Amino acid sequence: MIKAGIIGGAGYTGLELVRLLLMHPEVEISVVTSRRYKGKKISDVNPHLEPFIELEYEDVDTKEIADRSDIVFLAVPHGSAMDYVPELMAKGTRVIDLSADYRLKKEEYERIYKRQHKDKDKEKRKSVYGLTELHPEVADADLIANPGCYPTGAILAVAPLVKGNEGGGRVKQVVFDSKSGISGAGAEPSDKSHFPNLAENIVPYEVTAHRHVAEMRMELSVKVSFTPHVIPSIRGILTTAHVFIEESGAKTQDEIEETYKRFYEGKRFIRLRKGLPSLSSVRGTNFCDIGFEIEEESDRIVVISAIDNLVKGGSGQAIQNMNLMFGMDEREGLWFPGLVP
Amino acid sequence: MIKAGIIGGAGYTGLELVRLLLMHPEVEISVVTSRRYKGKKISDVNPHLEPFIELEYEDVDTKEIADRSDIVFLAVPHGSAMDYVPELMAKGTRVIDLSADYRLKKEEYERIYKRQHKDKDKEKRKSVYGLTELHPEVADADLIANPGCYPTGAILAVAPLVKGNEGGGRVKQVVFDSKSGISGAGAEPSDKSHFPNLAENIVPYEVTAHRHVAEMRMELSVKVSFTPHVIPSIRGILTTAHVFIEESGAKTQDEIEETYKRFYEGKRFIRLRKGLPSLSSVRGTNFCDIGFEIEEESDRIVVISAIDNLVKGGSGQAIQNMNLMFGMDEREGLWFPGLVP
Amino acid sequence: MIKAGIIGGAGYTGLELVRLLLMHPEVEISVVTSRRYKGKKISDVNPHLEPFIELEYEDVDTKEIADRSDIVFLAVPHGSAMDYVPELMAKGTRVIDLSADYRLKKEEYERIYKRQHKDKDKEKRKSVYGLTELHPEVADADLIANPGCYPTGAILAVAPLVKGNEGGGRVKQVVFDSKSGISGAGAEPSDKSHFPNLAENIVPYEVTAHRHVAEMRMELSVKVSFTPHVIPSIRGILTTAHVFIEESGAKTQDEIEETYKRFYEGKRFIRLRKGLPSLSSVRGTNFCDIGFEIEEESDRIVVISAIDNLVKGGSGQAIQNMNLMFGMDEREGLWFPGLVP
Amino acid sequence: MIKAGIIGGAGYTGLELVRLLLMHPEVEISVVTSRRYKGKKISDVNPHLEPFIELEYEDVDTKEIADRSDIVFLAVPHGSAMDYVPELMAKGTRVIDLSADYRLKKEEYERIYKRQHKDKDKEKRKSVYGLTELHPEVADADLIANPGCYPTGAILAVAPLVKGNEGGGRVKQVVFDSKSGISGAGAEPSDKSHFPNLAENIVPYEVTAHRHVAEMRMELSVKVSFTPHVIPSIRGILTTAHVFIEESGAKTQDEIEETYKRFYEGKRFIRLRKGLPSLSSVRGTNFCDIGFEIEEESDRIVVISAIDNLVKGGSGQAIQNMNLMFGMDEREGLWFPGLVP
Repeated sequence: MIKAGIIGGAGYTGLELVRLLLMHPEVEISVVTSRRYKGKKISDVNPHLEPFIELEYEDVDTKEIADRSDIVFLAVPHGSAMDYVPELMAKGTRVIDLSADYRLKKEEYERIYKRQHKDKDKEKRKSVYGLTELHPEVADADLIANPGCYPTGAILAVAPLVKGNEGGGRVKQVVFDSKSGISGAGAEPSDKSHFPNLAENIVPYEVTAHRHVAEMRMELSVKVSFTPHVIPSIRGILTTAHVFIEESGAKTQDEIEETYKRFYEGKRFIRLRKGLPSLSSVRGTNFCDIGFEIEEESDRIVVISAIDNLVKGGSGQAIQNMNLMFGMDEREGLWFPGLVP
Repeated sequence: MIKAGIIGGAGYTGLELVRLLLMHPEVEISVVTSRRYKGKKISDVNPHLEPFIELEYEDVDTKEIADRSDIVFLAVPHGSAMDYVPELMAKGTRVIDLSADYRLKKEEYERIYKRQHKDKDKEKRKSVYGLTELHPEVADADLIANPGCYPTGAILAVAPLVKGNEGGGRVKQVVFDSKSGISGAGAEPSDKSHFPNLAENIVPYEVTAHRHVAEMRMELSVKVSFTPHVIPSIRGILTTAHVFIEESGAKTQDEIEETYKRFYEGKRFIRLRKGLPSLSSVRGTNFCDIGFEIEEESDRIVVISAIDNLVKGGSGQAIQNMNLMFGMDEREGLWFPGLVP
Repeated sequence: MIKAGIIGGAGYTGLELVRLLLMHPEVEISVVTSRRYKGKKISDVNPHLEPFIELEYEDVDTKEIADRSDIVFLAVPHGSAMDYVPELMAKGTRVIDLSADYRLKKEEYERIYKRQHKDKDKEKRKSVYGLTELHPEVADADLIANPGCYPTGAILAVAPLVKGNEGGGRVKQVVFDSKSGISGAGAEPSDKSHFPNLAENIVPYEVTAHRHVAEMRMELSVKVSFTPHVIPSIRGILTTAHVFIEESGAKTQDEIEETYKRFYEGKRFIRLRKGLPSLSSVRGTNFCDIGFEIEEESDRIVVISAIDNLVKGGSGQAIQNMNLMFGMDEREGLWFPGLVP
Repeated sequence: MIKAGIIGGAGYTGLELVRLLLMHPEVEISVVTSRRYKGKKISDVNPHLEPFIELEYEDVDTKEIADRSDIVFLAVPHGSAMDYVPELMAKGTRVIDLSADYRLKKEEYERIYKRQHKDKDKEKRKSVYGLTELHPEVADADLIANPGCYPTGAILAVAPLVKGNEGGGRVKQVVFDSKSGISGAGAEPSDKSHFPNLAENIVPYEVTAHRHVAEMRMELSVKVSFTPHVIPSIRGILTTAHVFIEESGAKTQDEIEETYKRFYEGKRFIRLRKGLPSLSSVRGTNFCDIGFEIEEESDRIVVISAIDNLVKGGSGQAIQNMNLMFGMDEREGLWFPGLVP
């Protein structure tokens, strides 16, 4: 059994790790931390976990956690993960960081997140960007930078067009218009998550300058814009990718389908759809559903992707990465259909 | 492997059986019928099931289904189940009927459902009312009448008070005020399920004469009233039981807690809560969460129960019954925490 | 034009007063206070009010407000209103208090709200409980204690049965099971109003001991219990009144209809429904919709009432009271149909 | 008083006309038709209209309706309006058609709507496209083609950039990504409007070929693409306009603000926002709220518009047009703030 520790187990990302790891046949949760709830039974704070976990929340003691864990998931805010990584790795523990701290190059990180990177060995650590379908090298990594929720759905939607053999160089620009459930904003109540503010509404925010665009640009190497919105749903991100193609790049429905099939061959969590995906089919799952339409007499292809932001867009993908790091099938513990209706 | 057939696999109850049985380690789904979709791949009609099931929907051929199945689940409308039961049982196949056809005594059924019972051996069949926690004899049954969704939550809420040792005879009256998600009304669009009619609303219906009250009266043998409402949620039934106690029956918090604990000892899907339950903790699960408060200077105890109407209130409970019928642990295939948030 | 001041204009109750008074043909808003937003344009803080109001939020200066207002609405928390009332009334300004401070007798208030009443002339002031339909004396009042949201819907639902000529003494007990939109919990984000906690859920709270029960008992003088729940809606309270009748009190559908019609004759905001009401028809309006069903072979009548908690359950009723205090038709400024769908 | 008739008064558009015209001080509703409900009291079918309207639904008798009305609103499906227009206009009655029948040139209409236009005088009639803010000539029109809901929000969002003095010719392409409440799909239940299908979901549809794009292209004369989605809300359309500017067209925040202000000067239902609009502020109103952000180092400007699809996107705009046709202030009967929260 793999012993897995979770630092930051009271937020939505941490709790989703707990929920999913509890069902994983090869994993035993060794420790879950929460400064706020230390000493309390996890299932008292989160009654849906009763009686599946006996552990109490603990305070953070990095060294001890390293000793008790084969792998540690960091489900802490941006800027905090880099406090733990050096010590954990020094003890030989593998790490999957769900924050942004190891996703971007140092200078890019500091520019985008407006803070200094405190890990002096940041660049040496060879962290792998854990978008599993594009980065098979996660299997050999000791440190995974788990992707942001928006970039996961966005990059997966268009990677075959941008990076597939025939698509190379033919995509001139992509605009991602994303719609997210509010759980992406976290477990803390705020004006944004206040029910009367969100119900019967849809709220655009950071429509030209959301930090996640940096990951999309890093991975796609093409002109990318990104505009997020919050919708009155708990889970899910639907990304509408408006892809603009060079004139010489016009392709048929069949050719594009073929491109996607080839690109994602063997990737079990990608489901290419005949129609257009929506959030309900992926609720609670690690799937990324993808569909597209070609606009007639236009340079535009519309690709839609749907993920559960807390699973494929976060904790599920982290476990998918863990599976590969430990030589297991990527589906282990994650292979179930969504909660429909 | 147990071979399980599902007659009526396109409605919500049938689909939930499919979803749950696909995750059951000891079951293989042998056949799923749908007159409307016969010949179509189940996962084409229900994309969330891709790629978990290869079967196509079939037309109903009762005999053949009996041959191919160790157990058959009937997820058909009231009045239809009794068309299949005689033939299935004649072939020695066990049956779990999720309709109302075998829940009540013949005369009571005919009075409440306003139709004649067509199975001439109805009373001989010894169907067991499949409220597992109250009826351990499900383990020996060949025909289970799976309870209605409302009765499941209602009866479980108050059974210990009504039937527990100390409680016997002291409850004088119960009013169940239930609030249900709309999935209980089925997969067919209707005025009731039309989003603009239900969102930002709550709709009381059949507030004095819902048919499910007959099951509650049968099981509780006490004066029972029942008033259901539909709330703007997909899943779940929260039942607020207003329990009126004889003056001589006054009890303390501790005594009542003790009564519940004793009554439900070893029943793994009952979770007694310190506070009051709500729907979110049981979403997607087979749990029934129960909590209560005693009103001061009054004859009233308020007991709240929460279930997922499609799982504990339907398909999950059916599988729990199947588990016991086949000598397995009741938790097999059903032991996972809810989808929170 | 009546000059109306609002103390506490940033919460939902205060904002609803602003919204409604802006449409009132005989009223001019003279001052709106908010400690938090003083100096800011009201329509900058609340963009839906642009360009209907030019005023800025002001700090509270009770004397000055009295000078500038013919009537002052107190939309402040319980315990604060009594700080303003003495000074406002000393200056001859009429007051409608939307808090609980003047609803109950002193000792009852202090017992229920667990605080001392600071207004030494509390009992002398002859405040009128502003449930307009039951208290025509609001027309002559200088101080109105505007009812709580739950009591408004609950009391109106059953008053004809309890207090109507034929009904007198025949109701033995009432249980109010109420379902409220979350706006009743106020404009401040909290765990309760956090979208992922409330969506797809329904949350019972204070199920035996909510403070509002005191108002219901005061007005109805019959055995009353009360159990509230929050539903995933912004506005509205649906109250399901389970009314238990003495055996000798059995009545027919027609008799009860007649009782209601007679009791509410001329009360323009009460709509007696043939079927059962739901929240959507009253959304944004001052109506209280009422319907009922008699349970066969039982002592129970189920009466359902539906109100908009912020209008009839709060600010609308306050304006209805103001209309009568100033000799106007009760409908002035409030006579419009609901926002359907 | 203006006598207004409504043909098609049982759908959402017709009912919204009724609701709004009932509050209009200069209008008397003369007749409302519904084949389905003829002979029934309008307020029996729609209880939220009780007691505001005494009329019954009538069958359609075009000539008689013309006699009894100064203006007739056609709230009928596409393809039906052209059956009524010739006869109504022959009788001298003015017409506002809320269907698509008179919005486009004949050939364009027949191509897009895949049916023949039956009005042989279609092109002679000089119908005016009733997007009031862009077409002051509505004031002199006898036949108004009221715009589609999506085009209203989309065109208003970008018209100043495309058609404003400085903007002329500098916009090279616009992609409208729209999110609509489900009431746009009508009052008839369907799979799309089925609560379990829409709640916790967002559904893209006709993402490259929705018919409404034809109106956008007609009015904007620039390269336009359009992708709609349905969100789990009753009302509202939020349109995210991704506007691509020629390099030479780069402008500052102030310049663009100035362009919008100048373009919409005196247009009382356009509210230019400092931040980004969302649906809640326009709920139930005739406003179109607009805000924008310029993406740094890019050719993209993001403009967001928010409307209530049934008011500014339909019936409210129709009344705004009527106001101008009859020489009134455009605000008459429509000047009130939104229902917030």
